[in-house]
Amino acid sequence: MKDYIIHDGWKIIEEGFHPEHNKITESLMSLGNGRMGHRANFEEKYSGLTLPGSYVAGVYYPDKTRVGWWKNGYPEYFAKVLNAANWIGINLRIGNLVLDLNQCKVHNFRRELDMMNGVLTRTFTAELEDGKQVRVTARRFASIAHSEIGAIRYTLEAVNFSEKVTIVPYIDFDVVNTDANYDEKFWDEVNKSVAHGEGYVTAEVRKTLFQVCTGMKFRILKNGEMIRFHADLEERQKYVSNIVNVQLELGDKLTIEKYGVNLSSEYCSKKNLNNTAAQHLNQAFEQGFDHLLQEHAQLWQKKWETSDILIKGDVAAQQGIRFNIFQLQQTYTGEDERLNIGPKGFTGEKYGGSTYWDTEAYCIPFFLATAPSKVAQNLLSYRHKHLQKAIENGKKLGFNSGAALYPMVTMNGEECHNEWEITFEEIHRNGAIAFAIYDYIRYTGDKGYLLPKGFEVLLGISRFWSQRINWSAEKQKYVLLGVTGPNEYENNVNNNFHTNKIAQWTLKYTLEVIEWLKSENLKEYNKLTAKWNFDETAETSRWKEIIEKIYFPRDESRDIFLQQDGFLDKDLVPAAALPVKERPLNQNWSWDRILRSPYIKQADTLQSFYLFEGEYDTETIRRHFDFYEPLTVHESSLSPCIHTILAAKIGYPAKAYELYLRTSRLDLDDYNNDTEDGCHITSMGGTWMSFVQGFGGMRVKNGKLHFAPILPEKWEGYSFNINFRGTTIQIEVNKKEVMMENHSSQEIKLMVYGTELAIPAGSQIITEINTRMI
Amino acid sequence: MKDYIIHDGWKIIEEGFHPEHNKITESLMSLGNGRMGHRANFEEKYSGLTLPGSYVAGVYYPDKTRVGWWKNGYPEYFAKVLNAANWIGINLRIGNLVLDLNQCKVHNFRRELDMMNGVLTRTFTAELEDGKQVRVTARRFASIAHSEIGAIRYTLEAVNFSEKVTIVPYIDFDVVNTDANYDEKFWDEVNKSVAHGEGYVTAEVRKTLFQVCTGMKFRILKNGEMIRFHADLEERQKYVSNIVNVQLELGDKLTIEKYGVNLSSEYCSKKNLNNTAAQHLNQAFEQGFDHLLQEHAQLWQKKWETSDILIKGDVAAQQGIRFNIFQLQQTYTGEDERLNIGPKGFTGEKYGGSTYWDTEAYCIPFFLATAPSKVAQNLLSYRHKHLQKAIENGKKLGFNSGAALYPMVTMNGEECHNEWEITFEEIHRNGAIAFAIYDYIRYTGDKGYLLPKGFEVLLGISRFWSQRINWSAEKQKYVLLGVTGPNEYENNVNNNFHTNKIAQWTLKYTLEVIEWLKSENLKEYNKLTAKWNFDETAETSRWKEIIEKIYFPRDESRDIFLQQDGFLDKDLVPAAALPVKERPLNQNWSWDRILRSPYIKQADTLQSFYLFEGEYDTETIRRHFDFYEPLTVHESSLSPCIHTILAAKIGYPAKAYELYLRTSRLDLDDYNNDTEDGCHITSMGGTWMSFVQGFGGMRVKNGKLHFAPILPEKWEGYSFNINFRGTTIQIEVNKKEVMMENHSSQEIKLMVYGTELAIPAGSQIITEINTRMI
Repeated sequence: MKDYIIHDGWKIIEEGFHPEHNKITESLMSLGNGRMGHRANFEEKYSGLTLPGSYVAGVYYPDKTRVGWWKNGYPEYFAKVLNAANWIGINLRIGNLVLDLNQCKVHNFRRELDMMNGVLTRTFTAELEDGKQVRVTARRFASIAHSEIGAIRYTLEAVNFSEKVTIVPYIDFDVVNTDANYDEKFWDEVNKSVAHGEGYVTAEVRKTLFQVCTGMKFRILKNGEMIRFHADLEERQKYVSNIVNVQLELGDKLTIEKYGVNLSSEYCSKKNLNNTAAQHLNQAFEQGFDHLLQEHAQLWQKKWETSDILIKGDVAAQQGIRFNIFQLQQTYTGEDERLNIGPKGFTGEKYGGSTYWDTEAYCIPFFLATAPSKVAQNLLSYRHKHLQKAIENGKKLGFNSGAALYPMVTMNGEECHNEWEITFEEIHRNGAIAFAIYDYIRYTGDKGYLLPKGFEVLLGISRFWSQRINWSAEKQKYVLLGVTGPNEYENNVNNNFHTNKIAQWTLKYTLEVIEWLKSENLKEYNKLTAKWNFDETAETSRWKEIIEKIYFPRDESRDIFLQQDGFLDKDLVPAAALPVKERPLNQNWSWDRILRSPYIKQADTLQSFYLFEGEYDTETIRRHFDFYEPLTVHESSLSPCIHTILAAKIGYPAKAYELYLRTSRLDLDDYNNDTEDGCHITSMGGTWMSFVQGFGGMRVKNGKLHFAPILPEKWEGYSFNINFRGTTIQIEVNKKEVMMENHSSQEIKLMVYGTELAIPAGSQIITEINTRMI
Repeated sequence: MKDYIIHDGWKIIEEGFHPEHNKITESLMSLGNGRMGHRANFEEKYSGLTLPGSYVAGVYYPDKTRVGWWKNGYPEYFAKVLNAANWIGINLRIGNLVLDLNQCKVHNFRRELDMMNGVLTRTFTAELEDGKQVRVTARRFASIAHSEIGAIRYTLEAVNFSEKVTIVPYIDFDVVNTDANYDEKFWDEVNKSVAHGEGYVTAEVRKTLFQVCTGMKFRILKNGEMIRFHADLEERQKYVSNIVNVQLELGDKLTIEKYGVNLSSEYCSKKNLNNTAAQHLNQAFEQGFDHLLQEHAQLWQKKWETSDILIKGDVAAQQGIRFNIFQLQQTYTGEDERLNIGPKGFTGEKYGGSTYWDTEAYCIPFFLATAPSKVAQNLLSYRHKHLQKAIENGKKLGFNSGAALYPMVTMNGEECHNEWEITFEEIHRNGAIAFAIYDYIRYTGDKGYLLPKGFEVLLGISRFWSQRINWSAEKQKYVLLGVTGPNEYENNVNNNFHTNKIAQWTLKYTLEVIEWLKSENLKEYNKLTAKWNFDETAETSRWKEIIEKIYFPRDESRDIFLQQDGFLDKDLVPAAALPVKERPLNQNWSWDRILRSPYIKQADTLQSFYLFEGEYDTETIRRHFDFYEPLTVHESSLSPCIHTILAAKIGYPAKAYELYLRTSRLDLDDYNNDTEDGCHITSMGGTWMSFVQGFGGMRVKNGKLHFAPILPEKWEGYSFNINFRGTTIQIEVNKKEVMMENHSSQEIKLMVYGTELAIPAGSQIITEINTRMI
């Protein structure tokens, strides 16, 4: 755990340079706009610790898989997020010395990410080897208003010298992925051009043939006045630059305004790529830095209007939640159903493919409550578009008749991952994808999504469960053998409770959906049964039998469900009893030791108690929490959030608060010692859930919002907004009261602590806070 | 399955060229002498399907592991058997055309391996593009008498032409391993030299720095007369050759006698490597082909005297058993305790490291019965030499206090393998290594081996079991969680019967050994307990508790032990009911489907019933066989042999015969479709076991040999020899009688069908054959 980041309500601040943490800071202060993004790398050369990273959404490379021992059914390729052109680069020389913070004394360094406006600013004074001091202010953003555009304003001041300064703004497409399996470069140059004050490189991804045109255009100002300059043009493989010399006198301020464009062939024909990119860039250049920044900041403020969470009296918690929301917003803007939410967003390249079950289980709730319903719907459509590939994947593994197994990791619908215990066995993901359809409809009321998309996906998944399960003559029950649950510290177990539960639930829900379709639109339904060769009678009767006779491992003496068969054979020592130096286990224990231990990486049985809480009384949930949480090591970023929500529900507010801090400050404090690879973007959806569902007690039942706020002791209050079926409601909590304000033009009926309240349009209702159970 | 190999009692014959099977034939007809070996590649250039392979024992490269997803505890390197210099090569040109059987018409092709004499002969007539016909006879061997030396006699006859012939004998050390993880070459040239009629290349293995000097020397004869010739000398990177032109007239016969030497720095200082190699080679050259061949053939015949098995009335079975014995004998000669028996011997490079548990479980019995006891002892010592590394391996996985986990695959004592489910979990191997010590002592009576070697290894292994096991509060028993049994079609299971059984057995046996050591040599024993910090009271009392309270999964209704917890939850459809086109499963089913199926790759529970048959009555063994064998797919080469022995014991002779044919002709008939990668050398020990223990009913109990021969219906009879504690006994069986002949100079007492017989020195006893149970 680290704590060099300054606590602040709206900013992420590094005060004084921490070169040893530079890769972490680069991750934390990454910028993105849903279509492109980059890490908080320095503009000028830096020879110290750094992980250069610029990314363009939707562009990937199918890297040949590196695997020790092949298993039948493995994919040949692992689609990877690509490191793309560096467009932020501006190299500098003062006299003959290169400006490189690794090679000079650094004074008054400050780097800050202003989350309110989406701007990264860095200031420092560098003292070069020859004693010359230069004061720098660099500010940049990735425009939310023009998602192809980024802009930088880089100012340097000659503190104690007069000297020639050399400025080299460049575009460098000759980049590598550090996780390339065979140290291959993935981009080939298509064309490039360089002229006075501008330059372009267009490159193509090997195999997938995506093209991206990246360009720059810049102006130079001296003491605020634009100057004419002479530029030497430079070009080499996948690289263009201008080399500009400017004479500075003592006290002079030199400003470079560099504008960048990234346009991919996903958004423009290859033929027009260069021209269109140039149009965007020229327009941005004309509009200028201040204008672009203003547009950009306004849009960010609009995002905050609907999605901000205010916490009073706890700046660490405040910074944490805003950081999570900021990162989610800049990763996915919801306009393009071909895109999804990568586990690292635009902050790193680890974990390759962009889509995990994280999206459905941890991110969709955030977008449902803070964005138009189209955004969540696009995330669902993404899976519907991949249905055929999920069916092919099922076939590859020996299933048939349209059984769909969605991939564990994907970029284009094909499976990317190959650890057999995950790829083939972590099949609860299929359930999470089904549940997201239910969740979307529960929230939005938009049952129309079922016809045909929702139904088609549910049918494929239900068929999978029906084939994957087998009858145990011994138990006289249906069993699911050889699975891995969300807790990846167990592999190839039998009857994982959560997997069995979500399989059973999928079948039940699909049956409900079928009944609704038949009553609502029999004609369309009949078309669909024909299209999918769906033998309703035979298939649903098997489903019904499975629903009735599926097995759930139990311990009667403790009156709990067991995570899997044989769980009680383990040595059940609580995690708290482990030596601190052995944590995290995944960095200190051998894999076999982890596997036979009772320790739980992330909510597994409790994941079901979160999803299906309506089926259990609070006492039952508490009993399971009391058994499983002490064995849980939370070594997945997806763990603390679910536990926060459950802890809040069952009356463990201190535990809820502890785990909330852990999830919301996971990256800021580098809990898992891996933020340098990038931030845990998808778990940030979980942080939002832990706040709104945990502290806010928000649920949706029978088409109505429910709230049951609790307030952590340390806090004075908090407030958040929720979009729900065309209305906006603000919940504000302090130590005494809960205030609900209806920001929309229609009455809202909602449930607070179990009591229905009707709030007229534009009005508010205040009720006493209490800490009863939800 | 293929059947192009001609059935013959002493020879492996390919009649007519089968280029499509060439890699298989190359494997089958490989030659070796324990120190070096090579596949049956052609001497002359061949542009068709071929897997070039020459190997030098004990020389390996630690190839950087290629693995998809790292697990803590994995080794960094995978030690690989190395493809070494090609010393057999002789390129030929007739006029301007290269002799390449892939580029001409081939007539009267025949390739045969004479197993009696250890000689490979190839004859053919090649018709070149221009119509010229050349008749070739090529014969070679790897000398058993001089294990650095190989010799070739290559004769070609100008059938229908007069023309200049170009002969290019060469040494090529510029070789690759086809399984190199990063397409790297593993050898660097140290020096080379080439002169008229000879040449040498010395190369060094990267990282491990083994050096090997490979040389050639040749003479040329025309129509039987040695000729003088002019040679152009050629050298390039790691390659030397002579280019010799000879004018042939119609009917002329040209013979090249090429002698090769392979000397490694394991057997000679690097300084003297070249000189010593040259001495060996010069001597061989002087002795000449016929002399060397004669010496070689005599030694082979001596090997056969003690190890041959004669089968009357079934040439396929005869060829099978001799092929297995031949390959075992040429892979391991038992003189060097640094060497072991690689799964592919000198027939291929697959599976990397040289040592698996196969050696202990399948090969030691063969060497015990057919070679001096020193040979088996060297194989045991090999593990003792690696004890410290096994302890380090244990530490790496979280064990302590001298707990030893021997590697799954190794070349130098370090673990080479990284599939977590095997590397960390297939721990029954540790038991096999312990059992081999018992087996050796049971056979030889040499208890002295326990002091200290045997004891030290047993202590390390027992400590491992004691730490690996845990107490199940639920079961009130000790359980072994997260293991993989011999049946690798199950992974990460709990309480694998065989693993639990062999763990319990190891602890019991170690306790016995301790009692014996204390009574026999207390002083030495006390030294050993001090050396190993062995707290006898505390450690053995835990062992005793484990022995008493270890858990074995059972099905009471069937009265059988279960392969593992939860086995009965599977869908128990017999393997015979599977569609033929889906077999072998490992080539047709996805890995997850295999895992959740009930199908058994090789003897698992039955492995225990084989090893510990004395603890069970025949009816119990039959009950387990009847349950498990129908679920067994025998997709490991190590499976049929154990089943043959059990089937013979429990009165299923037809089953025994079926599985015996499968094991003995596994490679000859390419049952598993993988002989092209090399032969299954270690399973050949299993074939021998299946014959002698299965049909011969041989056991050793209480220091005495037991026999209970049965005769498969199809056979007229068989005979084999057994070395036992300084005596040699021949067992001959026909349809009526069993004849036992004592070939030694002392009386032998042995048990036949449960009756003790005393056979005077040099005498024989005949008894009626019966088919009662053993």
